[in-house]
Amino acid sequence: MKKLLSRLVFSVFLFFAAVFNVHGEEAALSSATEECLDCHRALHPGLVASWEKSRHSRTTPAAALVKASISRRVSSDSIDKSLQDVVVGCYECHSLRVDQHADSFEHNGYRINVIVSPKDCATCHSVEADQYSKNIMSHAYGNLVDNSLYRDMTAAVNNNYHRKDKSLVLGDIDKATEYESCLYCHGTKVEVKGLATRQTSFGELTFPVLEGWPNQGVGRINPDGSKGACTSCHSRHEFSIEMARKPYTCSECHKGPDVPAYKVYEVSKHGNIFNSLDKNYNFDNVPWVVGKDFTAPTCATCHASLLVTPDQEVIAERTHQFNDRLAWRLFGVPYAHPHPVDADLKDVRNSRGLPLAVELDGTPVAQHVIDKAEQDLRNKKMKAVCASCHSTEWSEEHFRRLDNTIARTNDITHEATKILMDIWEGNYAHGLPQGANIFDEEAERMWTSIWLFYANSTRFASAMAGGGDYGVFADGRYQTTEQLYRLNDYLKFRESLENKMPKK
Amino acid sequence: MKKLLSRLVFSVFLFFAAVFNVHGEEAALSSATEECLDCHRALHPGLVASWEKSRHSRTTPAAALVKASISRRVSSDSIDKSLQDVVVGCYECHSLRVDQHADSFEHNGYRINVIVSPKDCATCHSVEADQYSKNIMSHAYGNLVDNSLYRDMTAAVNNNYHRKDKSLVLGDIDKATEYESCLYCHGTKVEVKGLATRQTSFGELTFPVLEGWPNQGVGRINPDGSKGACTSCHSRHEFSIEMARKPYTCSECHKGPDVPAYKVYEVSKHGNIFNSLDKNYNFDNVPWVVGKDFTAPTCATCHASLLVTPDQEVIAERTHQFNDRLAWRLFGVPYAHPHPVDADLKDVRNSRGLPLAVELDGTPVAQHVIDKAEQDLRNKKMKAVCASCHSTEWSEEHFRRLDNTIARTNDITHEATKILMDIWEGNYAHGLPQGANIFDEEAERMWTSIWLFYANSTRFASAMAGGGDYGVFADGRYQTTEQLYRLNDYLKFRESLENKMPKK
Amino acid sequence: MKKLLSRLVFSVFLFFAAVFNVHGEEAALSSATEECLDCHRALHPGLVASWEKSRHSRTTPAAALVKASISRRVSSDSIDKSLQDVVVGCYECHSLRVDQHADSFEHNGYRINVIVSPKDCATCHSVEADQYSKNIMSHAYGNLVDNSLYRDMTAAVNNNYHRKDKSLVLGDIDKATEYESCLYCHGTKVEVKGLATRQTSFGELTFPVLEGWPNQGVGRINPDGSKGACTSCHSRHEFSIEMARKPYTCSECHKGPDVPAYKVYEVSKHGNIFNSLDKNYNFDNVPWVVGKDFTAPTCATCHASLLVTPDQEVIAERTHQFNDRLAWRLFGVPYAHPHPVDADLKDVRNSRGLPLAVELDGTPVAQHVIDKAEQDLRNKKMKAVCASCHSTEWSEEHFRRLDNTIARTNDITHEATKILMDIWEGNYAHGLPQGANIFDEEAERMWTSIWLFYANSTRFASAMAGGGDYGVFADGRYQTTEQLYRLNDYLKFRESLENKMPKK
Repeated sequence: MKKLLSRLVFSVFLFFAAVFNVHGEEAALSSATEECLDCHRALHPGLVASWEKSRHSRTTPAAALVKASISRRVSSDSIDKSLQDVVVGCYECHSLRVDQHADSFEHNGYRINVIVSPKDCATCHSVEADQYSKNIMSHAYGNLVDNSLYRDMTAAVNNNYHRKDKSLVLGDIDKATEYESCLYCHGTKVEVKGLATRQTSFGELTFPVLEGWPNQGVGRINPDGSKGACTSCHSRHEFSIEMARKPYTCSECHKGPDVPAYKVYEVSKHGNIFNSLDKNYNFDNVPWVVGKDFTAPTCATCHASLLVTPDQEVIAERTHQFNDRLAWRLFGVPYAHPHPVDADLKDVRNSRGLPLAVELDGTPVAQHVIDKAEQDLRNKKMKAVCASCHSTEWSEEHFRRLDNTIARTNDITHEATKILMDIWEGNYAHGLPQGANIFDEEAERMWTSIWLFYANSTRFASAMAGGGDYGVFADGRYQTTEQLYRLNDYLKFRESLENKMPKK
Repeated sequence: MKKLLSRLVFSVFLFFAAVFNVHGEEAALSSATEECLDCHRALHPGLVASWEKSRHSRTTPAAALVKASISRRVSSDSIDKSLQDVVVGCYECHSLRVDQHADSFEHNGYRINVIVSPKDCATCHSVEADQYSKNIMSHAYGNLVDNSLYRDMTAAVNNNYHRKDKSLVLGDIDKATEYESCLYCHGTKVEVKGLATRQTSFGELTFPVLEGWPNQGVGRINPDGSKGACTSCHSRHEFSIEMARKPYTCSECHKGPDVPAYKVYEVSKHGNIFNSLDKNYNFDNVPWVVGKDFTAPTCATCHASLLVTPDQEVIAERTHQFNDRLAWRLFGVPYAHPHPVDADLKDVRNSRGLPLAVELDGTPVAQHVIDKAEQDLRNKKMKAVCASCHSTEWSEEHFRRLDNTIARTNDITHEATKILMDIWEGNYAHGLPQGANIFDEEAERMWTSIWLFYANSTRFASAMAGGGDYGVFADGRYQTTEQLYRLNDYLKFRESLENKMPKK
Repeated sequence: MKKLLSRLVFSVFLFFAAVFNVHGEEAALSSATEECLDCHRALHPGLVASWEKSRHSRTTPAAALVKASISRRVSSDSIDKSLQDVVVGCYECHSLRVDQHADSFEHNGYRINVIVSPKDCATCHSVEADQYSKNIMSHAYGNLVDNSLYRDMTAAVNNNYHRKDKSLVLGDIDKATEYESCLYCHGTKVEVKGLATRQTSFGELTFPVLEGWPNQGVGRINPDGSKGACTSCHSRHEFSIEMARKPYTCSECHKGPDVPAYKVYEVSKHGNIFNSLDKNYNFDNVPWVVGKDFTAPTCATCHASLLVTPDQEVIAERTHQFNDRLAWRLFGVPYAHPHPVDADLKDVRNSRGLPLAVELDGTPVAQHVIDKAEQDLRNKKMKAVCASCHSTEWSEEHFRRLDNTIARTNDITHEATKILMDIWEGNYAHGLPQGANIFDEEAERMWTSIWLFYANSTRFASAMAGGGDYGVFADGRYQTTEQLYRLNDYLKFRESLENKMPKK
């Protein structure tokens, strides 16, 4: 009985130790960070509390570096000694590389930056920053605004219109609108426009004036010239790996009809299991143990995380180049095609000189897209993840179906493109032959919705092995074919009117 | 060791005390409520269990009143002595103000009401009831059914159609349909239509016959003449503050394309953080501590709750007039405009005599909307909430963008309105000039969808600093411009047909 | 004090016993299953871990059989002795009835099946398998592919199109597309196409080649001739009752605009309460105790689960024939009508010989649908569930409104059908009179969307006593009437063109 009692007491001790662990011995704050907190704790209590909940507030780089390689959350081989023995606080991040930061400024005796950029985060997380720089997402700003076709689309969508002689005339570009629409996800170009002084509760203070700020878009151009924002996914000051691993993070930008990844995931088998059982999952463990930490994958599982078996055998390496395991760029522009070779698409041109990696009939432009061997390699990496739970036959057939769906949706986009070309040819709308914006007329929008919404939706439903209705009645094949009828009827109707109507 | 042991034992005690707290000493039930429970526990076990989980079942008004003011959940200065020392049970609520209740009836020796109205809840929660009566939501019934334009819209949408000579003729109004559609959220008018006797498992019993019941709409007209339903948000018999603070409650009515607040929230940064981390939040604490109880706001955080810093400094006062911190009425009718002065809109008329707080070109009608000073005051209150986590620059720019988006979406609504007016002028559709319903033709619906769905969606995406696609491809600017093309093409096409076609 | 201490120690013991319960004494594995696990634990760690979390891995049929009848999770009266004393492992399920399985094959000395079918699950769960065979869902494959009208719809939606003389010509059927679209939910026909040998990490092995696999559709035709897939809802190897009881499972197939049950549920009062408070619910208890285990119903609560009061009185029996408590088939084809008598619809014909249980004016075909008495019986069973929380008046009025909504949406479908018939009559589109596909022209799709999307959505919103906007602005009455205008305008416009245009 005495033995049992002592065992119980020990168990109780362990239990309470585990419970109170998070409030255990606290690591040291730098004196600079202590100063930051002195004011900001009162000014922005939510922000500070959020950081206090982060791992950054509770651990030091020195402690992070000594972990076993597979469990390590920092990837830089060495971290500056001066940073190693304090927790990662306000000053530690906001004071990095101030000379390269156009947004640096004097603040209560310290030189700090408004924005912490991926190059700053690279201090401790260099491998992730490097991988992310090869991720097409980090180039999302330039890939959008430097592409003449996309510029036409954003103008047609975002700019105002005014009527002149009963025709709609496209108005000017409007920066604030750009920031809220396309660039909310793609990222803005943050530029310093001088300094401004204002009264604060701590007296008069001077701050940089930033154009394009706030923004956490994935391809943000930072005032140090770097690209991207780690906070797109590791949001705000909690820098949570749990958040980045949950699909809600991805849903911020991948829910719209153009890339309905989250909507599809939600009604896929994977999404159902996640939604039903995620309360039992551990989203914080590194490495992430398949089966033990979770049973259904989230976006991060298949596209980013370091995955191991319960025996710590590596299933997939961590990657922040999220197309590492992706053979295809599903998102059609206007056709789905093998992933671009380069994340920066500024030099991509097809044989007509259009900034597209495909010809207008859907043929990929060979030099701009990865070849079959690379596609096979990427598929192989992805199938290793699938194999955690699925037989070879299962996943092989899955990818066969996906390939078929890509081909079929491209086919129907091709038919639609031919109809639109006839419409342009007949001068029933003004597009490529007329050198006009190809997104600002009703018939052009019918064509656009076919590939931008319905073909994409259908392909995402296929890629996630489910999401049935997003391939059928919810922006799927039903809507594809309906728009195809409308587009073809538009041409036939305009032609028949022209033939039948008396010339004035 | 002995000391350690006794400490552990004490910890264990505290732990179990905490765990079993909810089942601790029970407060007294009134004998009337005990009688209710005797039968209803068997009849409606879910309903009773739900009440048993509520705070009402476990605490007395006397205990609630002695709490420190900032933590108090009752706001009435005094509560009738007879109610103070029993828990808030069935009889305590359903027996209030029976003389004012047309729905009161004799039931097993007690006179009780079917419906507990906001005026009944005011017994303990008088401040909230008073605030809510100034909330535009409490007038949602009259603001809808007494507005001739809205009446036309509901008729065009809800009533049946029959064909006569190949034209569609609008049928009669249908009450049951009204209850299920617009009035589900706006609230019904609950009227007593006599009494009916029926066999029950306890013998023959008599109950009031209620027209428009059941309903929990926010502007319900109750049989005591009061307006609204506290159970719209504090649902059923659990009266949960947790539920009211979670965004799912708001989503019941604010998810549709006309007010897509919840859809936008879900894919905003705030929504992402909430969805990812809410399992760590405390939704029950009063006051609600920013940073400690939660790190991302829900709808209630910004629009309703009493918020304090971890040091118990008040960030925002509790309000049940949810536009207290809102400068604009984003919801366009058909233009977004400064919030109406009065929650009851029955006297609102523009210069054309239409029941709108704006002219047809978007100019607000000055006497019906709040002025710049009041707008600034409301913005200031809201920015105090933002400041919990965001810098002044951050939130200032946010509101600048929102103002810009309001102006831009109003502009495009104005262009659309001019086109529709030309369509009416040309007799290609029948609207204001013809004295006809302005919502029952295809061209009119193109116009309606621009402001009711797409401009609203774009504004909500802006207001929540995110929800990117709800401002772009998901009922956003893409759809706005597409409908604008369609509307303008409709006019041009009808005109060209008229010009070209031989007169018969 | 000593007594208190011993009590505490005992409490602690109970507490830890409860906590570590799941890792307690393990039940025996069969040697065959042990062999399976030896390899598959390394090959498919996620799959094995998922099974390890299942009840199947921790209990034996013998232990399951001795539970009190009301708590029992197996329904077969007797289970083969050879299976009783080992846990339900790989071999126990995959080796059943091999002689009836066309997909059985030799695998490392054992004869096993790829697919575990409902007839295999019936070994222990015979009552559920039998009920499910009478569920319309189990016939979802044949009810779709053997119905000539549905075949036309799937062809128009799924097949490719090519232009010939500027007309769209429907291409061939494509199996892979079928598997990903309609049959993803309805189920495929899984057929064995021989054997294939391939290299594996354990050397050369031979597996069956399966056409139509993978698939977990509700009406899957299995290689043993059985129909359905228990894993549609009790997903993968966790076989979780919790998952099947949560609405996410149903959402896989019931979220599209044709059957938006989950979307409606989400914004209903029931869905709000579930979303807000489900962390307090127990989804695993059998029987499921209303009030104690949950306060808001999920799909399973109303349509499937065995429900009891806290006093263990039965409120509703468990059923896997999910229309057991449903008087109406809400899903219109094209009209909502009383539920079909038979789950297998292959013999259903109306007076025109069309494979529909209704005439074209909406009148049900009496011999194919349940009669009023059976409808009343089903409503009575459902109302018993409602009565857990709602008064008789409340639920009576709810069902009155639903009946009204069914009548009204059928009426408007009828008006639309008459317009379409006039369009066909005028040869402005080609449908029934021309013996043509009735789903492959723009006007036909206007008609289709009225009943398939908008009338269904409106009815689901009504049936779930909420989801307001799905009956109004979100695929509801607003869209119904808009499409009705479009359809009628189409006819009038085509007629007016014909009358006015000079004949060539």
